[in-house]
Amino acid sequence: MAQKPSIPKGTRDFGQQETAERNYIFDTIRSVFKTYGFAQIETPSMENLSTLLGKYGEEGDKLLFRILNSGDAFASADFSKPLTPQVCEKGLRYDLTVPFARYVVQHQNDLVFPFKRFQIQPVWRADRPQKGRYREFYQCDVDAIGSNSLLCELELIQIIDKVFEKLGVNVLVKINNRKVLTGLAEICGFPDKVVDITVAIDKLDKIGLDAVKEEMLQKGLTPEAVALLEPVLLLEGDSAAKLARMREIMGASPTGLKGLDELEELFELIAAAGVRTKTEIDLSLARGLNYYTGAIFEVKALDFQIGSICGGGRYDNLTGIFGLPNMSGVGVSFGADRIYDVLKGLDKFPKDLRSSTTLLFANMGAAEAGYILPVAAALRSEGIAVEIYPDSVKLKKQFDYADRKAIPFLSICGETEMASGQINIKNLSTGLQQSFSKDDLPGILAFLK
Amino acid sequence: MAQKPSIPKGTRDFGQQETAERNYIFDTIRSVFKTYGFAQIETPSMENLSTLLGKYGEEGDKLLFRILNSGDAFASADFSKPLTPQVCEKGLRYDLTVPFARYVVQHQNDLVFPFKRFQIQPVWRADRPQKGRYREFYQCDVDAIGSNSLLCELELIQIIDKVFEKLGVNVLVKINNRKVLTGLAEICGFPDKVVDITVAIDKLDKIGLDAVKEEMLQKGLTPEAVALLEPVLLLEGDSAAKLARMREIMGASPTGLKGLDELEELFELIAAAGVRTKTEIDLSLARGLNYYTGAIFEVKALDFQIGSICGGGRYDNLTGIFGLPNMSGVGVSFGADRIYDVLKGLDKFPKDLRSSTTLLFANMGAAEAGYILPVAAALRSEGIAVEIYPDSVKLKKQFDYADRKAIPFLSICGETEMASGQINIKNLSTGLQQSFSKDDLPGILAFLK
Repeated sequence: MAQKPSIPKGTRDFGQQETAERNYIFDTIRSVFKTYGFAQIETPSMENLSTLLGKYGEEGDKLLFRILNSGDAFASADFSKPLTPQVCEKGLRYDLTVPFARYVVQHQNDLVFPFKRFQIQPVWRADRPQKGRYREFYQCDVDAIGSNSLLCELELIQIIDKVFEKLGVNVLVKINNRKVLTGLAEICGFPDKVVDITVAIDKLDKIGLDAVKEEMLQKGLTPEAVALLEPVLLLEGDSAAKLARMREIMGASPTGLKGLDELEELFELIAAAGVRTKTEIDLSLARGLNYYTGAIFEVKALDFQIGSICGGGRYDNLTGIFGLPNMSGVGVSFGADRIYDVLKGLDKFPKDLRSSTTLLFANMGAAEAGYILPVAAALRSEGIAVEIYPDSVKLKKQFDYADRKAIPFLSICGETEMASGQINIKNLSTGLQQSFSKDDLPGILAFLK
Repeated sequence: MAQKPSIPKGTRDFGQQETAERNYIFDTIRSVFKTYGFAQIETPSMENLSTLLGKYGEEGDKLLFRILNSGDAFASADFSKPLTPQVCEKGLRYDLTVPFARYVVQHQNDLVFPFKRFQIQPVWRADRPQKGRYREFYQCDVDAIGSNSLLCELELIQIIDKVFEKLGVNVLVKINNRKVLTGLAEICGFPDKVVDITVAIDKLDKIGLDAVKEEMLQKGLTPEAVALLEPVLLLEGDSAAKLARMREIMGASPTGLKGLDELEELFELIAAAGVRTKTEIDLSLARGLNYYTGAIFEVKALDFQIGSICGGGRYDNLTGIFGLPNMSGVGVSFGADRIYDVLKGLDKFPKDLRSSTTLLFANMGAAEAGYILPVAAALRSEGIAVEIYPDSVKLKKQFDYADRKAIPFLSICGETEMASGQINIKNLSTGLQQSFSKDDLPGILAFLK
């Protein structure tokens, strides 16, 4: 008996409609990246395990999909023989960041710095599949590496601004600075606890102020230190007000003050560049990753309940792990799956994505098909998507085909049309029907617009 | 010490230039597919091993990249424990054909038949890496399934015609029909040896007539049978002449005659549709795969020495393995890597793929950057790729950046330009320099064209 086909848990088939919608997101993001001079690169799906292991923490190592070198190891189904590390040297990429770092170091002599690249490719994680969490999903990463300039941060915010303007989604860009977090750890007297403090602050939205304070105490902070940090968690007002209040608190930490300077300059640049999207300082924004050293970004959809749909920040030592130190860079990653959910939820996908075909010629027989072929070819050369129904079957079946595929125009050319050299086309939504000389390409094109 | 980064053998990084060139190929192919009403779908990179195994022969099974269920199995590096089949249930897809068959069967109730889909995705094979053979490479497959009509074959030839016209490559489309091959096996008295005969004929170009005859004898054909087949291998003249000669030989085989009818009708359709590309019957064309049942196609570049750059054919039972019999379909696959080599070898890539950026604003300091920002934003909104050099460093370094990135236009706006509200732009290839009011967007756009 034939097997019932299925796909692995946590993976997805994308049908025609979803693929068109996903491509709309990718194309929009790509077109904006390009106007800022970012160039697309692609790296292999599989990386050496030595490249991947140890970069994502112990938990991450477990979530790597490892690949056997070839089917040989399993071909004989001899599962009694132990496998050696030599038969499993590769893994599927877990994100686009580590491959990017590897790429920059490996090709450093061929690259022009500052190097501005983007990458839109799938990544794989052996995560427990659940709603909204997949084992294969796309990331859209954009990074500029090799410059400390805050103009790089600005560009990313401008890109976020333009992408979501084009997609028709209202968003808020939250901005923080890791140096400010470091400064906070310093002024409260626990400079070595910046990670603990950061992790605790990160949970403010989820577990609330009291639980965050409790967690800080558990991590070894004194009640005095926690009291010193508390007003920072309760900051209010606009960015200027927050910055001013922070300057008072941060007096004793040069790093913290540097972070505040960076935030201030970035907000000035945002104003100068005419960024449309709302931006705000959010000191509770820390993100999980430890490698951010300056700006930290997170983008929230304003009219739809979902986690962050884009995020990133500045890092100073991403390429150090591969032997190229002191390469400062900044980047963000757009979450295609969540953006998809937002556009779907807010009904923001363009309507014309629905059908891939503009005009269907019904099939009335071999002679009629021969009559139609040159007209169809001419329309296709003009970029119009045209189908000829392949089989000369009942018209009912052919209408059904047009209907189910949401094809907006139908042409039925039979003996009459052939005899008079005409092409008859019907707009299926308005019911309007019109005849054209088969050579009247401009007329037909105008009708199909 | 930091590890020296590298990528797995047989895989590739694609830098900015190669990615742009590859996207040019994919975009060209995609745009043609769409004008014929084919819709894009995507399937997961990993399929269940039960879907993949046994579909590519014993050799193919060995070339499947198998994926361990999670890193857990290897995380503890306990290689003394034997692995069980339960920890390795998935493999990377080997081609786009089997996943397509699986997709059609799994989603048959949601699809509109005839189902016209295309798919442009990477596939993986644990092949021995060598020049021109990779372990990860893209396939571009287009198929129409659920119709017997030869209009489907015609459309694929029209698509081939248009794709290579757009890419500027002269090609020859070789056409055969599997029913004709079956007929040959029947008339020479060895109907059960059609595969052996097909495989032998397939080698004609490589090993020559005598070796093919020798191979047929070794496979059990009688000298009389081989003598009967010999004139078929030596057919000359145009398609009409070949068809006429074949009809004489094929008299006794209804299947063979049906194949000749199909060939004849297809050539009539090709003429009626005005296909520009040269098409010819090639009875030595058999291709490796056993599942073709009707038309077989192969495309050769005429001005560049390389294997086939596109090929395919009609199959009647692709979905049968997954429980959906009697689904006839026809498809071809474009070989992106070989097409890339052809375009590179013939210097056919458009020149404007080279740079991703049209205009670079030199960075003369913070105030000047602030002056430029709104102009840059306005140009980007018009779709122009604009960069502002992020750091205010020596102009020599900034010029170098423009030069190495082949950016065609450079703007240096200093105090003078700021004072007079001007934007100064230089065409770096002609040396022509011009000043514009900073609000004269149309003027600037015209200069950048």
